[in-house]
Amino acid sequence: MSQNIQLKNPHLEGMPSDYLYHLAINVPDTKNTSDIQKQFGDVRVICTGGTAIRMLELAKYLGKLLGVQDTSEPVDMCAKGHRYALYKVGPVICVSHGVGSSTFSVVLHELLKLVHYARCQDPIFLRIGTCGGIGVTPGTVVVTKDAFNGLLRNEHEIAILGERVVRPAQFPESVIKDILAYGGRPDDGFQIISGNTMGTDCFYEGQGRTDGAICEYTAEDKMKFLHKCHDLGIRNIEMEASFFASVTQKIGVKAGDICVTLLNRLDGDQVNAEKKEEFEHRPFLVVGRYIQHLLKK
Amino acid sequence: MSQNIQLKNPHLEGMPSDYLYHLAINVPDTKNTSDIQKQFGDVRVICTGGTAIRMLELAKYLGKLLGVQDTSEPVDMCAKGHRYALYKVGPVICVSHGVGSSTFSVVLHELLKLVHYARCQDPIFLRIGTCGGIGVTPGTVVVTKDAFNGLLRNEHEIAILGERVVRPAQFPESVIKDILAYGGRPDDGFQIISGNTMGTDCFYEGQGRTDGAICEYTAEDKMKFLHKCHDLGIRNIEMEASFFASVTQKIGVKAGDICVTLLNRLDGDQVNAEKKEEFEHRPFLVVGRYIQHLLKK
Repeated sequence: MSQNIQLKNPHLEGMPSDYLYHLAINVPDTKNTSDIQKQFGDVRVICTGGTAIRMLELAKYLGKLLGVQDTSEPVDMCAKGHRYALYKVGPVICVSHGVGSSTFSVVLHELLKLVHYARCQDPIFLRIGTCGGIGVTPGTVVVTKDAFNGLLRNEHEIAILGERVVRPAQFPESVIKDILAYGGRPDDGFQIISGNTMGTDCFYEGQGRTDGAICEYTAEDKMKFLHKCHDLGIRNIEMEASFFASVTQKIGVKAGDICVTLLNRLDGDQVNAEKKEEFEHRPFLVVGRYIQHLLKK
Repeated sequence: MSQNIQLKNPHLEGMPSDYLYHLAINVPDTKNTSDIQKQFGDVRVICTGGTAIRMLELAKYLGKLLGVQDTSEPVDMCAKGHRYALYKVGPVICVSHGVGSSTFSVVLHELLKLVHYARCQDPIFLRIGTCGGIGVTPGTVVVTKDAFNGLLRNEHEIAILGERVVRPAQFPESVIKDILAYGGRPDDGFQIISGNTMGTDCFYEGQGRTDGAICEYTAEDKMKFLHKCHDLGIRNIEMEASFFASVTQKIGVKAGDICVTLLNRLDGDQVNAEKKEEFEHRPFLVVGRYIQHLLKK
């Protein structure tokens, strides 16, 4: 039976109104959300990704693929908030989240409240992105299994009321299985694998790079670290996975993280932008087919 | 004696070229950076802030104030990177960093490398932003003294090579003193104070809000936490201070964090956007006058 998601916050019951500040979406009456339901109630899939421009491209791509968008350009429904872009094409919204957990955290809390108020049925949250690979060919698409934080633990840690709180960080197996089964095709010319992902809070020191403004370890320390990651089944590094997994797992909403590797970190740190555009399109293909499968159900 | 900043990364010496990936700025020859010096060598102040639109507004405001910008609109010099916007007006650049430390971290490392390659003399990094206040009238401008993390410690913690690394997080007294001395005027109609700032990784649970998608504490727990913050001299909460202080202190570059409070968290969690625009202009006034003072030196 399909159902609306239940948030993990009893205080919301007592709030007469709610303002999703960073999305600039007003919920004037939390007991009667019919306007929000009209606008967003049909949403089944929430796609998220770093930049606004990539989310616009994804919206255009999915609109065409699903046959739900006319020739007009999708409109940013959160433009007034100036921070995140949100495009809707039929039952899918595509939302930018910026770089890393801190910024993703803000918009994910508000998106969860949005689909709750809109009474979306069985919504699925997906993230697409770029990342560094570990021991895989650049251009490989990695679907995250277990998400590790920068401490090499399969969990996410945040400070709440001044104390460390640790939460598990796994993505649901059923989602991973379906993305792998329906997202890729043998003649795509690239690999899709499931693997563990490390989500760090820093692109440079946090990911063992030696090309940031600060670096206090040797090239040998770095390689030892990357090999240790590889031994833990970590095949890619980005900046959101452990946060994303922990919050969606806590709420009990389905989610998946699909990233394309731009480089193999065992070979270097600098990102070669040459094939970036071609590589960035790969998660579009995968997510598009997976969503087609979801909507057929 | 004025001088170029020294980065804390010996590996950079051995890199023949460098690509500041997220800024989309190429340094083809790290031993001969004359092109970068021509473009950015005169930069004295690096202003940073959350959104691209606010940084454009700041650039226009400073261009006019300093008399260095003609009537044309400043151009985003990092548009190709799609992630951060950078506007240059005379000896000042205004750069967006998104929401929180994770995204700020990426651009700050690259900006530090940029001013290093450009051989900028005695650059000063400033951040302007909005924040929640604790026990201060909404609209108050807070100049950060000591930066606390979400664990209520006056330090910043990051994971490097899988281990916790803790770094001090203070802003230089001389910068704070000058911002207070030159930034405000008695007839401004608002207060500028120096106070401690807590920088968290999460806007909702991390800041003790009860209006996120998840909340597992009571309203009493939250108030106890906010009063504990207040007892530590914390007058505002945002998402960047401890990171920003720790990196600039580590490198030994001057920096200041200037934020306007949009609400008093002792009175509630929801952000009232009514006076947002008026309040957001206040750090412009403060930073503008401080920069005028700097450039007179």
